[in-house]
Amino acid sequence: MKSKFIVIEGLEGAGKTTAREAVVEVLQQHGIHDIVFTREPGGTPLAEQLRVLVKQGIEGEQVTDKAELLMLYAARVQLVENVIKPALARGAWVVGDRHDLSSQAYQGGGREMDAALMTTLRDAVLGDFRPDLTLYLDVTPEIGLQRARARGALDRIEQESLRFFERTRARYLALAQADASIVTVDATQAIDEVTTSLKAALHRWLAGQRP
Amino acid sequence: MKSKFIVIEGLEGAGKTTAREAVVEVLQQHGIHDIVFTREPGGTPLAEQLRVLVKQGIEGEQVTDKAELLMLYAARVQLVENVIKPALARGAWVVGDRHDLSSQAYQGGGREMDAALMTTLRDAVLGDFRPDLTLYLDVTPEIGLQRARARGALDRIEQESLRFFERTRARYLALAQADASIVTVDATQAIDEVTTSLKAALHRWLAGQRP
Repeated sequence: MKSKFIVIEGLEGAGKTTAREAVVEVLQQHGIHDIVFTREPGGTPLAEQLRVLVKQGIEGEQVTDKAELLMLYAARVQLVENVIKPALARGAWVVGDRHDLSSQAYQGGGREMDAALMTTLRDAVLGDFRPDLTLYLDVTPEIGLQRARARGALDRIEQESLRFFERTRARYLALAQADASIVTVDATQAIDEVTTSLKAALHRWLAGQRP
Repeated sequence: MKSKFIVIEGLEGAGKTTAREAVVEVLQQHGIHDIVFTREPGGTPLAEQLRVLVKQGIEGEQVTDKAELLMLYAARVQLVENVIKPALARGAWVVGDRHDLSSQAYQGGGREMDAALMTTLRDAVLGDFRPDLTLYLDVTPEIGLQRARARGALDRIEQESLRFFERTRARYLALAQADASIVTVDATQAIDEVTTSLKAALHRWLAGQRP
């Protein structure tokens, strides 16, 4: 089977880390062992520096929505060109913790940035490069933030209002509904049930990929 | 007179620092003393961090042209929103060492990036915000780089090929010819003559701004 780029998406506290372990388990059951993990923003030296700027902001200065978006895309193009595409080219599978859908949901939905700008930037930066499969873990902001808070201090973006995360979730759901490559998993269930649902979805998808 | 945004542009070694002193002298002769200086990329805490990433690059990683462009615009939007617009709003004049024309010339011309991307990004990030006057110091790459080398080690961008700077200069000249707000000064002359030409051009422009 040709190598694929699989992305795990969702709000903070949706269970992306646990989901990643489940994805790896399923891939290994299908005989896939050469797996590269990425996270966004980040995953290259430059992108990790941009991640710090985006997530922590900077003392005494307001980060504008546009600068945030541009830094996220600068980090993404570094990761795609320097890590993801080379990994896929040598036959490795790539499992990503977030990718472009996060920008569409958080910046496009949460921050309500101009839709034309979002599309133009994505197309200009990424061309037609897209994940083969996105597993979207759908959770309410209340449940997600409760879990995220239990993990420790919230970063600059995690401190946004509940309304921000409601807009983000609504955009995730709308985009998932419109795109057959995005599978929505109900992540409000108990963790074992989420993992079971996710594994079943991935098994089905992999079965469909066989030539 | 309403406060204005004046930008000094040109290749490395064109004489932008000397030109800035001449601009300040002329402005003061016209009774303008509240002057804010900016430099690009940079001029805010976040933008200065991005400047380091753009100019020094990062150990062990290729900075893609797109990431470079996106970081430059992230820095620019921070500077425009957090420094330049507030300064103009309170009545200060702003004198900038480089602004958007540098991206049009270096990334659009030098790096030959897609013209539609350049325009789209500029319009999306800056809207219709433009300098009131740009003083473009026109110098050949040979003369400019000779001067820049005499100042010390060259940074990541200054190490580009002569052809890169020839394309950059050609784009500067083409854009200056098409835009009445850009005044070209022959900066291949001896430094005193450059200063005299620049001061004369600025005096003329300021006289024309009087109501």
